[in-house]
Amino acid sequence: MERTRHQGMAKNTYMRWRLPLVCLLWEVTMIVLFGVFVRFGPEADAHWEEEKKELNLTSDMENDFYFRYPSFQDVHVMIFVGFGFLMTFLKRYGFGAVGFNFLLAAFGIQWALLMQGWFHSFKNGKILIGVENLINADFCVGSVCIAFGAILGKTSPIQLLVMTLFQVTLFSVNEYILLNLLHVKDAGGSMTIHTFGAYFGLTVTRILYRPNLEQSKDKQGSVYHSDLFAMIGTLYLWMYWPSFNSAISEHGDAQHRSAINTYCSLAACVLTTMAFSSMLQKKGKLDMVHIQNATLAGGVAVGTSAEMMLTPYGSLIVGSISGIVSTVGYVYFTPFLESRLHIQDTCGIHNLHAMPGLIGGIVGAITAAAATEDVYGKEGFIKAFDFTGEYQTRTPSVQGGFQAAGIVVSLLMAFVGGAIVGGILKLPIWGDAAAENCFEDEVYWEVRGALPQVPEDEETDAYHMHNPDKPASP
Amino acid sequence: MERTRHQGMAKNTYMRWRLPLVCLLWEVTMIVLFGVFVRFGPEADAHWEEEKKELNLTSDMENDFYFRYPSFQDVHVMIFVGFGFLMTFLKRYGFGAVGFNFLLAAFGIQWALLMQGWFHSFKNGKILIGVENLINADFCVGSVCIAFGAILGKTSPIQLLVMTLFQVTLFSVNEYILLNLLHVKDAGGSMTIHTFGAYFGLTVTRILYRPNLEQSKDKQGSVYHSDLFAMIGTLYLWMYWPSFNSAISEHGDAQHRSAINTYCSLAACVLTTMAFSSMLQKKGKLDMVHIQNATLAGGVAVGTSAEMMLTPYGSLIVGSISGIVSTVGYVYFTPFLESRLHIQDTCGIHNLHAMPGLIGGIVGAITAAAATEDVYGKEGFIKAFDFTGEYQTRTPSVQGGFQAAGIVVSLLMAFVGGAIVGGILKLPIWGDAAAENCFEDEVYWEVRGALPQVPEDEETDAYHMHNPDKPASP
Amino acid sequence: MERTRHQGMAKNTYMRWRLPLVCLLWEVTMIVLFGVFVRFGPEADAHWEEEKKELNLTSDMENDFYFRYPSFQDVHVMIFVGFGFLMTFLKRYGFGAVGFNFLLAAFGIQWALLMQGWFHSFKNGKILIGVENLINADFCVGSVCIAFGAILGKTSPIQLLVMTLFQVTLFSVNEYILLNLLHVKDAGGSMTIHTFGAYFGLTVTRILYRPNLEQSKDKQGSVYHSDLFAMIGTLYLWMYWPSFNSAISEHGDAQHRSAINTYCSLAACVLTTMAFSSMLQKKGKLDMVHIQNATLAGGVAVGTSAEMMLTPYGSLIVGSISGIVSTVGYVYFTPFLESRLHIQDTCGIHNLHAMPGLIGGIVGAITAAAATEDVYGKEGFIKAFDFTGEYQTRTPSVQGGFQAAGIVVSLLMAFVGGAIVGGILKLPIWGDAAAENCFEDEVYWEVRGALPQVPEDEETDAYHMHNPDKPASP
Repeated sequence: MERTRHQGMAKNTYMRWRLPLVCLLWEVTMIVLFGVFVRFGPEADAHWEEEKKELNLTSDMENDFYFRYPSFQDVHVMIFVGFGFLMTFLKRYGFGAVGFNFLLAAFGIQWALLMQGWFHSFKNGKILIGVENLINADFCVGSVCIAFGAILGKTSPIQLLVMTLFQVTLFSVNEYILLNLLHVKDAGGSMTIHTFGAYFGLTVTRILYRPNLEQSKDKQGSVYHSDLFAMIGTLYLWMYWPSFNSAISEHGDAQHRSAINTYCSLAACVLTTMAFSSMLQKKGKLDMVHIQNATLAGGVAVGTSAEMMLTPYGSLIVGSISGIVSTVGYVYFTPFLESRLHIQDTCGIHNLHAMPGLIGGIVGAITAAAATEDVYGKEGFIKAFDFTGEYQTRTPSVQGGFQAAGIVVSLLMAFVGGAIVGGILKLPIWGDAAAENCFEDEVYWEVRGALPQVPEDEETDAYHMHNPDKPASP
Repeated sequence: MERTRHQGMAKNTYMRWRLPLVCLLWEVTMIVLFGVFVRFGPEADAHWEEEKKELNLTSDMENDFYFRYPSFQDVHVMIFVGFGFLMTFLKRYGFGAVGFNFLLAAFGIQWALLMQGWFHSFKNGKILIGVENLINADFCVGSVCIAFGAILGKTSPIQLLVMTLFQVTLFSVNEYILLNLLHVKDAGGSMTIHTFGAYFGLTVTRILYRPNLEQSKDKQGSVYHSDLFAMIGTLYLWMYWPSFNSAISEHGDAQHRSAINTYCSLAACVLTTMAFSSMLQKKGKLDMVHIQNATLAGGVAVGTSAEMMLTPYGSLIVGSISGIVSTVGYVYFTPFLESRLHIQDTCGIHNLHAMPGLIGGIVGAITAAAATEDVYGKEGFIKAFDFTGEYQTRTPSVQGGFQAAGIVVSLLMAFVGGAIVGGILKLPIWGDAAAENCFEDEVYWEVRGALPQVPEDEETDAYHMHNPDKPASP
Repeated sequence: MERTRHQGMAKNTYMRWRLPLVCLLWEVTMIVLFGVFVRFGPEADAHWEEEKKELNLTSDMENDFYFRYPSFQDVHVMIFVGFGFLMTFLKRYGFGAVGFNFLLAAFGIQWALLMQGWFHSFKNGKILIGVENLINADFCVGSVCIAFGAILGKTSPIQLLVMTLFQVTLFSVNEYILLNLLHVKDAGGSMTIHTFGAYFGLTVTRILYRPNLEQSKDKQGSVYHSDLFAMIGTLYLWMYWPSFNSAISEHGDAQHRSAINTYCSLAACVLTTMAFSSMLQKKGKLDMVHIQNATLAGGVAVGTSAEMMLTPYGSLIVGSISGIVSTVGYVYFTPFLESRLHIQDTCGIHNLHAMPGLIGGIVGAITAAAATEDVYGKEGFIKAFDFTGEYQTRTPSVQGGFQAAGIVVSLLMAFVGGAIVGGILKLPIWGDAAAENCFEDEVYWEVRGALPQVPEDEETDAYHMHNPDKPASP
């Protein structure tokens, strides 16, 4: 088969020394830094037996492991199978989608354990980790997976690793500003994960704009079975999103409530997505692109407010709106962004994460501002917003204002950070492919057997396969 | 490619206004009804802090969330990935299988929260929901997914939504009769979910009988990779069935026992299915249709009795028998049902859900009737069958009689309900496809790239692909 | 299509009576033995209500079900979807991979419940089972799934069942020697599951050496979509491995710690695997074989030590090394094993399980030997190594010695057992296929539609499909 056509490409995509060097260098760095800084937290340390006595805990069940481990595993599946397979929709980039996602996430969680650890779990010179740190590391990497969606198929694995290093760093700084300095609530990460991750990725892809990308347009679509692989990703994201939004909420009612709100929002989102997918197409047919993506917007859009008293019907409203916005985005905004703003957004993360993330931040601000002691109960009110210590006197409307500020900070961090990182990734040393070789696994992967055909092949051969009465060659 | 051959079809399958209208209308209705009725239950409400004190609970672990959420997520996967991918075995209906299942389930769970809420969680004019309601909503929708299996590939998405609306309603009524009026135990839903769902679906498909369906016979089969996609569904249903049958059992030993019984039953079922799959075929080869479906019958058949003291060997026996019955059903009953009774059962739900569901109901009745205080312990006996209040004096044999009555009621509801709903779906306004366009994604979906070939193509082209020495056209 | 070419094969692969007979005979045996021996353990029995009072338990949460069930389900997914789909990478053996894995695992868990039950849960003539028994049965079968990887595509289903029967038996004996007689710790099974399972399988495949296997070399590879199916298996193994290694650890900190160590080890392993996959290939491209397999070595290699105070950086080191060893193994050792030692290892289990398993055993011995009361705390030290009763006076260095002895015993059991079982499987009565029909689903499965092409077809047809200007036949 004609595999050699990529051999003559203009750019040097040879990875043999660069990729191993980067991977090994960073892994050694991780080992050193973990050796210096990372230790088990009290609930994972063998001293827990003594800890239990000191804290007067009568049951091992009180270990945070049992409160959060099932949710952690669901989140873990979302990051690796969810995002990984969601991006396999491209006909000839399935290996890159699931494989590079695997690579960047595996690296990212190590760096995130350190970065987030320094900010949030640093005690006596050591980072003490437990299951909640694992969840937060996965969350942080989730924002990188989102940004990966924008540049999918257009970058080298080294670029992805460099981006991961910087994005995890910026994510952690932004998260620290929001959660610690602004005292903002964002358990499901509408602002910290989705808004930040998406606008960061969109800025990066804008900087990396490829004017000749239409040269690989024939590969920038799906085939029948690649769409089914992508649905595996979609469904795991959809099903486990209640775990995502509730994973780090307070024990008890907050986790319970987050799961219910997210469940409701996502259910509503599916219906409005289906409605608009059919409505916005002349033939009235459903489009797998929308079903694979816009159905998830409901999870993004309640990311901040799910643990609040959003109420089930509030969730239905938010989910419905986000499904509509997201589907409309795929039909109208994505082409506009590409042609006018030169933002080439492979997976449409603007529709799935950026806009719903903003909705999520705003809904969170409104829900917080509307909170009353009547709705939450006296103790529940304090617990829900952690109005203790120096925040004892903060009112709901002030909290709403800080929540809104959190959106603005996330956007600023995304734009500035994305521009700088995009600039770094533009350096001609990272081994990215030429425009005509984008969205093509053969550039970075050993591929066995035939790849799914691109349209020019279909026009000639696949067509004839279904029409044996036509001649076999032009 | 020759995509236009469907354009001249006799029936109007244009969905552009009808599908969006139905989806949006119903979503708005859901929002209004949720707004009026649905609130957080005490364990998901921010007032839980006060509730805890009143109930003297010392740990957040006592929140029902921690007892049931992991099982809920497993059930959730079964409904969306399990049923969705199980039905992707059809070579050209993978989008419809997984996509329409997604649509109807997302709508159904909202309506089920309301219907089941009015019957079981209605307090002071409000439906108070928690994680158990989410599980029950998923269960209810499971019965619709089952019925969908019978009509798979032959209906429009609107018909599916209409069927969902009615079936969820009837399910909830039937469930109320069984659980509340007859005081029947059915935690894994052999009667309420499987027997009801399957006979309902079979009745609907009987009413919708298509005499010319052989026109699309060439599409009513699998290809190699579609069978592998279907195995994803099979395995997730099989692996998580212990969670399904134990999800709403009483805390403690009942959940534990349900999981063990189901695990045992399913393991045995695989062996008898493999045995009969090979035995009933002249060439002695295994048939993926059986492996994909009949291996699951063991989960269905212990749905009622799993939480009782069925014992592990009892489970092995039930699982063994149900695997045999189900496989024999695929080989002999399905063709008979189609040719003689005009029941066109795409997925063979009669073999996977109807017969095993009946077995499950009967085994449940026998196991209940055989219960003794010796086997259950004095307190365990009362707890297992909830022989309290007005049921304080009910004996095991009387309970067995009521269990049997539950089967009969479920069947009646299924036949009568299915006939009525089938009649409604027969109206010529829903946009279903002509017989020759059944089992074909291109009717309702935008399809990119070539679809898997149908036999007449293979006869000419695919055949020659493997035999290059034969001429390329007839 | 040319399906008949297998009809004339030399060996009799006709399964019609043999396979059903074996399956049914064994299932009946299981029912009888379960009837005589297996009962619910106290936490799954309806007498639990009384048990609770006796033990002064105040909450149903203390039932072991809630400590272990989520991990059990993750392990269950690893065995059936993880191993099943990992092996679907072969282009024409997807049904056999996922289907035979299903068959042998479903049989194996029943036999394992008995074997392990007699050794570990036997009280007053009965085996009392609970969720921990289910996990251990899955673990035991995991070792069979590993061995299956070595002989994948070359054996009949009956051979697999015979092997399962013997291997489960030997596994249980070996496990008893290690855990009870040597008092060795091995919660994640580096020795009992991986080392034993892999060397057992390698010995069996050595005995079953097929000198003419190159006749089916064209089928012993992947195609594009089969590699994506395999990635489903890979990712589920990778994501849930923290549950695997922590599933049967002590409640509390030990489970917590195991999950963290495994998470870290696996993350590091991905980076070194990617590095060496690219480095060891002239073109510098990544190889899906490595990504699918070597990324998992990190989970294997901390199987023994994960519940110990290995520390996160220790885990990173172990994971890094095992990724390197495993990838190097695929590139250099596997060809060597085949050409020089006549060990035909289809999935490369020597690289994924054997070598990392040995590493795991050694790391476990060292970590145990290095344990101090200072690191573990006084009580934690005793609890971690169960230094109670007759082991009260055992020192860490002695424990390390016994751990090392456990490796040796596991290897001996594997070699001797594998040789004997290999000899049994070599008998000409089991219906295995001829060399030219290996790695081919059509031998044992009804296959609908075209199978993925093998290279000789591609050379002629698929090639021309992409090159319409070339003539259609040679």
